[in-house]
Amino acid sequence: MTDFAIGSCRIEIGTGLLDVLGDRIRASGGEKSLRCAVVTDANVAALHLEKTKRSFARAGIGTDEFILAPGEKSKTFPVYMQLLSFLAAWHFTRSDAILALGGGVVGDLAGFAASTFLRGMRFFQAPTTLLAMIDSGIGGKTAVDLPEGKNLCGTFYPAEKVFCDVSALATLPRDIFADGSAEAVKYGVIRDARLFGEIEDGALVSDAEKTIARCAAIKAEIVARDLYDQGERRLLNFGHTFGHAIEIASDFSFSHGRAVAVGMMEITRIAVRRKLCGSDVAVRLEKTLQKAGLPTENPYDRAALAEIMLNDKKRRGTTLEWVVPRAIGRAELFPVEIGNLKEFLS
Amino acid sequence: MTDFAIGSCRIEIGTGLLDVLGDRIRASGGEKSLRCAVVTDANVAALHLEKTKRSFARAGIGTDEFILAPGEKSKTFPVYMQLLSFLAAWHFTRSDAILALGGGVVGDLAGFAASTFLRGMRFFQAPTTLLAMIDSGIGGKTAVDLPEGKNLCGTFYPAEKVFCDVSALATLPRDIFADGSAEAVKYGVIRDARLFGEIEDGALVSDAEKTIARCAAIKAEIVARDLYDQGERRLLNFGHTFGHAIEIASDFSFSHGRAVAVGMMEITRIAVRRKLCGSDVAVRLEKTLQKAGLPTENPYDRAALAEIMLNDKKRRGTTLEWVVPRAIGRAELFPVEIGNLKEFLS
Repeated sequence: MTDFAIGSCRIEIGTGLLDVLGDRIRASGGEKSLRCAVVTDANVAALHLEKTKRSFARAGIGTDEFILAPGEKSKTFPVYMQLLSFLAAWHFTRSDAILALGGGVVGDLAGFAASTFLRGMRFFQAPTTLLAMIDSGIGGKTAVDLPEGKNLCGTFYPAEKVFCDVSALATLPRDIFADGSAEAVKYGVIRDARLFGEIEDGALVSDAEKTIARCAAIKAEIVARDLYDQGERRLLNFGHTFGHAIEIASDFSFSHGRAVAVGMMEITRIAVRRKLCGSDVAVRLEKTLQKAGLPTENPYDRAALAEIMLNDKKRRGTTLEWVVPRAIGRAELFPVEIGNLKEFLS
Repeated sequence: MTDFAIGSCRIEIGTGLLDVLGDRIRASGGEKSLRCAVVTDANVAALHLEKTKRSFARAGIGTDEFILAPGEKSKTFPVYMQLLSFLAAWHFTRSDAILALGGGVVGDLAGFAASTFLRGMRFFQAPTTLLAMIDSGIGGKTAVDLPEGKNLCGTFYPAEKVFCDVSALATLPRDIFADGSAEAVKYGVIRDARLFGEIEDGALVSDAEKTIARCAAIKAEIVARDLYDQGERRLLNFGHTFGHAIEIASDFSFSHGRAVAVGMMEITRIAVRRKLCGSDVAVRLEKTLQKAGLPTENPYDRAALAEIMLNDKKRRGTTLEWVVPRAIGRAELFPVEIGNLKEFLS
């Protein structure tokens, strides 16, 4: 069991946490009459909802569940509005809570609803995917997609506490686990050469709890120093500018992790060619991603992706900001003028 | 010209501010490439949009305008989503700004969009109604309505600065001015007996700038001490629990100010009967409201209104919280058990 707090992020990592979630939330204080809306998707519900509800019942916390169709298509306004209507219909109050039980889509949507219903309810996360445990579940970013692009709408609203039950990973499909691995590799590249080496050696499987805790801590450290995404936090976008564009170009048939894996490779190749880092970075990154079952080749035209990037929220005024690796364990922000974008990518 | 800051609220009150708005916003810093989305409604646009845009052009700030149909029906999700799509289509970035030019509906909707598009853009308010200058434009509450109730969704997102151009009040229809007067009277009752006396004597018309500044300062003081609506700020709900229920019961044919006026009278009558305040409070309140052109009689059945209140966001768990006057200039929170609500209202 690992339990730590960095800034406003309080994270507990362990085995069997879903069985004691009710007690943990009860222990975090609040009103005796506390009720909890459990937001989850149909896949996660089949695996984890019953035990979660039992743990709430034992703690004397009433629950109502809101079950999404699995997948990114649930992270849209029609579903968000259904969730708000659900909360209103069941008379949830500001002192009640929402629990996001599931992966990134569940967490982003539930968090946005928690931050906006009655201008803010209590909010807890119980991520069940590797990606959510080490990335989307930490740091308080909530989101829904717009027709014009992914994550274009949202808030900053950190969960009171994030409960990572690593036993949930045992039932995770292989490709969903691989998706999360992409972000773990990212932390190694941008911040921690030792972590990268451990992941190269298979630590995500052989020593999951410790590796997840290290990844979560890196994310939490960076977020704590830059809650509103004004500087250092943008390093976390390594691979994501390309990645988001690839997701959109593929109409989301490319998963987030796969898109980020390709995005990290693409910007690293550009960095190598521009002598911003050595070719060893690209070689080790490619091997590690392939070992994790992730793609490394970009099937899309870079000029077409550039058009999509112009609508990217990371664009500030007339520049687009890239995260480039300088070595394994160190990355930098690298702004590119919009007018020079296609030349930069060529 | 009055210019003050209380907590995070920076408020400027004066004559002709819309003519210099561009310079004021430019002086507040930010990127050279700053662009501003001006959100307003068709009535306000006809009166104030051209001069506002000219002032931005003089300051070298590009503008795009988003014009709502006037009225509460624009404070809904379909319109909010159109606004988000507008911002995405025109490639607004986080470092760009939204200006809310208009009354409460414009401010609430524009503020919610500013707080959620790309997880937060810069935000300025230029209220053009008395209500928005002294109440809705100050304190950072943003909102949209749900089918289930008014203001059930929103965020806390204070504007960087609020610019109150009192010359805009000259073109305000009589009934819209009366709506704002209800909130001015409220500040007198809950906090400032001297202000109440001045309003009784007609100071809202005879000395508008000073009276507006005092009202805005009371709101800003209370908000600064309780940004997230956890305690003292709830005093501002005087008249609003009844008021919101009356608005809903009337399907919003009752304006907010009129509903609050009736709501203040109703809870004051209950307070007098329960000997929580003297009958002089009800007598002076009724005369002052009538003089301002506001109604004082409740045309709805209190039991039917009670049903609507059960979905009110001010309900905490099993109680409904009322604001009751103890004297002119002093009010208190008064929680009532849900089970005792109809008896309390009878």
